[in-house]
Amino acid sequence: LKFWFKSRFLFSGSASAAEDWWLRTCASEEWNRRSGFDAGHLRHRMHLQSCNTKKLTTRQMSDFLHTSVTYYGARSFAADRSAPVTSQATAPSSSPVVGETGSVSGDKFARDKDLLADLCKRRFFYRQAFDIYGGVAGFYTYGPPGSAVKNNIIKQWRSHFVIEESLLEIEDTCIMQHDVLKASGHVDRFNDFMVKDVSDESRFFRADKLLEDVMEQKLKETVTEEERVEYESVRNQADSYSREEISDIFKKYKIVSPETGNPLSDPYEFNLMFPTPIGPGGYLQGYLRPETAQGIFLNYKFCLEQNGNRLPFGVAQIGRAFRNEIAPRAGLTRQREFTQAEIEYFVNPKDKAHPKFGSVADLVITLWPSPQQLAAQGTVQMRVGDAVAQGVINNQTLGYYVTRTFLFLTSSGVDKKFLRFRQHLPTEMAHYACDCWDAEIFSSYGWLETVGIADRSCFDLTAHANASGTDLQYKEKLDQPIEKELLTVTKASGIAFMKAFKKDGKMMRQWVESLEETELEKLQSSLRKGPSEVEVDGRKFTILPELLVCERTKQKVSVNAYTPGVIEPSFGIDRLFVSIMEHVFYARPKDDSGDDKQTRGVLSFAPSVAPYKCTILPLDQRISRSDKYDELVTKFRSELAALGMSYTIDESGATVGRRYSRNDELGVPFAVTFDFTTLEDSTVTLRERDSMAQVRLPLSSVANLVRDFCLGETTWESVVAGK
Amino acid sequence: LKFWFKSRFLFSGSASAAEDWWLRTCASEEWNRRSGFDAGHLRHRMHLQSCNTKKLTTRQMSDFLHTSVTYYGARSFAADRSAPVTSQATAPSSSPVVGETGSVSGDKFARDKDLLADLCKRRFFYRQAFDIYGGVAGFYTYGPPGSAVKNNIIKQWRSHFVIEESLLEIEDTCIMQHDVLKASGHVDRFNDFMVKDVSDESRFFRADKLLEDVMEQKLKETVTEEERVEYESVRNQADSYSREEISDIFKKYKIVSPETGNPLSDPYEFNLMFPTPIGPGGYLQGYLRPETAQGIFLNYKFCLEQNGNRLPFGVAQIGRAFRNEIAPRAGLTRQREFTQAEIEYFVNPKDKAHPKFGSVADLVITLWPSPQQLAAQGTVQMRVGDAVAQGVINNQTLGYYVTRTFLFLTSSGVDKKFLRFRQHLPTEMAHYACDCWDAEIFSSYGWLETVGIADRSCFDLTAHANASGTDLQYKEKLDQPIEKELLTVTKASGIAFMKAFKKDGKMMRQWVESLEETELEKLQSSLRKGPSEVEVDGRKFTILPELLVCERTKQKVSVNAYTPGVIEPSFGIDRLFVSIMEHVFYARPKDDSGDDKQTRGVLSFAPSVAPYKCTILPLDQRISRSDKYDELVTKFRSELAALGMSYTIDESGATVGRRYSRNDELGVPFAVTFDFTTLEDSTVTLRERDSMAQVRLPLSSVANLVRDFCLGETTWESVVAGK
Repeated sequence: LKFWFKSRFLFSGSASAAEDWWLRTCASEEWNRRSGFDAGHLRHRMHLQSCNTKKLTTRQMSDFLHTSVTYYGARSFAADRSAPVTSQATAPSSSPVVGETGSVSGDKFARDKDLLADLCKRRFFYRQAFDIYGGVAGFYTYGPPGSAVKNNIIKQWRSHFVIEESLLEIEDTCIMQHDVLKASGHVDRFNDFMVKDVSDESRFFRADKLLEDVMEQKLKETVTEEERVEYESVRNQADSYSREEISDIFKKYKIVSPETGNPLSDPYEFNLMFPTPIGPGGYLQGYLRPETAQGIFLNYKFCLEQNGNRLPFGVAQIGRAFRNEIAPRAGLTRQREFTQAEIEYFVNPKDKAHPKFGSVADLVITLWPSPQQLAAQGTVQMRVGDAVAQGVINNQTLGYYVTRTFLFLTSSGVDKKFLRFRQHLPTEMAHYACDCWDAEIFSSYGWLETVGIADRSCFDLTAHANASGTDLQYKEKLDQPIEKELLTVTKASGIAFMKAFKKDGKMMRQWVESLEETELEKLQSSLRKGPSEVEVDGRKFTILPELLVCERTKQKVSVNAYTPGVIEPSFGIDRLFVSIMEHVFYARPKDDSGDDKQTRGVLSFAPSVAPYKCTILPLDQRISRSDKYDELVTKFRSELAALGMSYTIDESGATVGRRYSRNDELGVPFAVTFDFTTLEDSTVTLRERDSMAQVRLPLSSVANLVRDFCLGETTWESVVAGK
Repeated sequence: LKFWFKSRFLFSGSASAAEDWWLRTCASEEWNRRSGFDAGHLRHRMHLQSCNTKKLTTRQMSDFLHTSVTYYGARSFAADRSAPVTSQATAPSSSPVVGETGSVSGDKFARDKDLLADLCKRRFFYRQAFDIYGGVAGFYTYGPPGSAVKNNIIKQWRSHFVIEESLLEIEDTCIMQHDVLKASGHVDRFNDFMVKDVSDESRFFRADKLLEDVMEQKLKETVTEEERVEYESVRNQADSYSREEISDIFKKYKIVSPETGNPLSDPYEFNLMFPTPIGPGGYLQGYLRPETAQGIFLNYKFCLEQNGNRLPFGVAQIGRAFRNEIAPRAGLTRQREFTQAEIEYFVNPKDKAHPKFGSVADLVITLWPSPQQLAAQGTVQMRVGDAVAQGVINNQTLGYYVTRTFLFLTSSGVDKKFLRFRQHLPTEMAHYACDCWDAEIFSSYGWLETVGIADRSCFDLTAHANASGTDLQYKEKLDQPIEKELLTVTKASGIAFMKAFKKDGKMMRQWVESLEETELEKLQSSLRKGPSEVEVDGRKFTILPELLVCERTKQKVSVNAYTPGVIEPSFGIDRLFVSIMEHVFYARPKDDSGDDKQTRGVLSFAPSVAPYKCTILPLDQRISRSDKYDELVTKFRSELAALGMSYTIDESGATVGRRYSRNDELGVPFAVTFDFTTLEDSTVTLRERDSMAQVRLPLSSVANLVRDFCLGETTWESVVAGK
């Protein structure tokens, strides 16, 4: 997710030549893709290139060969957004099905994909935007149930993070000015490669996708084993080439414009931000934000004030982000406009302990640490406390948010069998980053990064402090003053200032003695070149070199200034929506009544996530036309509304069974049926979606019962058992 | 609001010449301003122009003179965003202070403005966006308490409208394609006038604003009475001139570029939508949506399906909208990026009764109907049932939403003394619209349109149906088939078709017999001119005039097709935020302790709207450092979080009194103080914000009590009385 949403910085750090090359490779790959990291890609590519062009140690060579083999074994489970899960691979050790005998198999997602897609369109969970105008790729509209589910996910996120973690939530703008996104690196490096048909510029292609298509095409023809390996290898690393490499490959395979056969332009970089002018004339360039995180960094200083100038604290933002994809084609998981929920948790970089870590330390979760990935081993089940103690996870705050993310995802409907936390390889991370974990969820899209949890160090604040000229350092008041060696003006020099400037002497002495170390150093070096002019209190004064004499003295200081580090959990809400939909969907076996003409799909949402909490069904029109029903249902509806429980009413003439099925498709957990008995004694039947079991209850108790379900304060079992 | 947010269409209808002129005048004004309608402007301008240039009946003349006088009387209460409320006017009959003896006066808003602005910045309710980079006009960031209040307003809106009215909520995109906004009229008519410095194009001005400034300047000089009237009149109608008029006026007063003195360009139209290219190359033009309503019209068809193909039903959308203001300068009330909540309620245009109207009919609200405005009379207090029965409000659905809006606004914190519903003048409305009411709220900005509730007829759906070629008619299945006179092909003519086209005869007969009435009429009129070529099943056929013979027959039809009408309540959430802030703010008198160095502001939010529901205060650090406190507070926090109650903790060393004041500023309704007694018996004091009264309670009961307050299930009085 990190890469998909942000990939803000990847520079090569100081390292050996081989590492340098590796880092450089990864950096360009990441900036060119941001496509959900596929560890296999990188490692396989390492292998190929190292064998061909690089001199590496035997150990490195062996590792690369090893991971290359692993890659082909693991491919079908790699987070590859373009290729659906194929059957070419044997199940690798990281497969979600291993060790889960008798449980739902991961195959089900690919198998159910069309059924679910049909349901989503038919019941308007979502559909392509501007549909009546023909639609535009990469834009989607959430319909009533989809919008309700998405809102419920966001509501739960807010409760789980903002309220429970006492985060400061802000709301920044979607349009951001150029300077901000220049400083963040997006203006220069948020690019994909593109090629154009030289004779018809309206035909353009994302270079890596076109290359993949061409290789797929070649693979369908009769090929030798050698060619097969070559084409597959090119296809698999299509999105990781540098500009020069992809240019060479296009030439090598003589790739032309698909339909016209015309030559193509050289691949060039296309910035993925949507530009828009602010105000008339285009004098102020704006962009739609590519992530919500930047708005938080811009307001760190003001949020710190609200937090009583104390660290650590977290700031959250939920909102739209925008990415002008060249040619998006992966449904909701790759939209041009999508919803993020991001947290920036600011910490003392030397103390990343989290006060509430103890409360989660005993939880056991599925981790895929980078050493295991590099050694071609599978995931491990680990107690989070142990993971942090053993250094698998870098620090408590990171570990805390990994665990809180696990709890949030599983409580929202993600099946924990299909959830893993994959650590970024050292090569995937920016040089300043300490550690990064992606929450990957398995679905018909493969393993999909849905949350990134990164320790980004102090990079972002430093970038904005430099670009904006604003001091974003944290001034920690020390309980005990500490001794520090400081550059100061000698007492004699201070007196010399006083004498030299006569009536302004006192002011000038105060001025020079109040200069901070860095300013004093600047003045020193300037005076080495001769007399310097300075401005004090709005007037100019010339200082002679001999006047300034400094010394290094030990002083007690009570303030420690530093730029905070930041831990960033970043959620892709639409990807989570997709994952939840796939995880909670199942097809109910057809019954014998013959009433079923189509598969009866069920969305088994948690009550808190379900789009509507119950549905109201009069048995038939004899009921729905009675005055007593009107009276009862009006009262019941206002009870539900007062509790904030959304509901639907189905007064159509269809059989009750068919109406139950319709509401199962929407994932409504309960149906409240009004029948003839209801008109007599005001009792109703309450039917639960998954068990299809029913109980008879006084109508007056139902609204509160539904609310209690949604808050998790009661269960169906206890209702069936008569509480 | 209608005008500010949308002003989608204003065409001249069929009317007398004078009406035509009036309509034309209003139309251009509205399209040039969208600035919050100021009735006085229009009417005064009518007067001026009619006296000078038009021949009108004596009656019209008299009316205009009358309204012109009214205008100057009412000016200080007109919704004029640029001019603050001035003291120049005598209180008109629509003044909020009249008839409210002893109550809060409307002056308080202007008086408190600076205090509140200081509080908002200091406590980060909101501030200019990109502040550390210097800020950009028209963009604001909501900080933690502001964002929480805004979210609570939206939450309450969703509960009040989406859930209680069973609306279908959707989530469409912010970026919309050109075709959609071309059809809606925004591409062609969503403009303001601009002028540029001819020698320095980076100096540009909104023409009407520059004109206002120039007139203000002239008014400050020594002027004759005649000049004063002239300058004031030009200033007051600056934003309502046509392009030709404003161009002439700029020439007349020889207006030049303010700082350089250079000549200015002729005024020209600047489109207020933010353009952005979709995908590379700019082959698909996009814009940021200027309103959320269009997304609803685009998805009307799919929502109707979800509603079981039944009318009436409503669709809602909450989200950002964007407007590229030339030079915004009215704070949160005129942002380049703002939040709307809109409803489109689709009805049978011939039956606008609302099933729940009876439940609101007895409510009495403040209306300012258009006849009262035109007759220079004030607002009236009316029972909504009477208003609809007497035709003051056009229909039940409109009346229902006016009332629901009243209930929503007052429950969110708007003081009903400063709330009125102003009907649009006949001249303000588009020709297709039936009726429109603005909820105007009085604040330091004057009367500010915050909600528009319009009966827009079937205009929008028709526009999109035509532009997209999609059938958006509603097919009403009739219980009883009705007889309708229809134009049909005679049987003999059908047979003639069959014979004439030989082997294609059957197909051609079927084709001609299946033509709808309008198509048949088209074909008839085409054949009157001679043989016509038609395309059937992809092939072309020539039809001779004598072949087609039609007749009018009575037929029984069981489907009645029509385009639904739409009632549109449209809320400006940021304007509502501003209004609530001003209405709930008050300055507490300084006490004698001398502890007060600054005015102690209080935000008296309703508990449901308050940013945090309570604050936790340890008496001092002896408490906050104790283990018992830790234990108690940890448990209390998790209780609050489980109930979704947001809270703050203030463990700073400030006195309890000062910490109470800090939380009063944030509008936190309750403070929970932990003292030495707490450590012994786990009781705490609960202090209420407005009364400052305290009660001692077991800590274990507090979380539920706070929740009950927020749900309105208990009151402070009953707690003080020991329940």
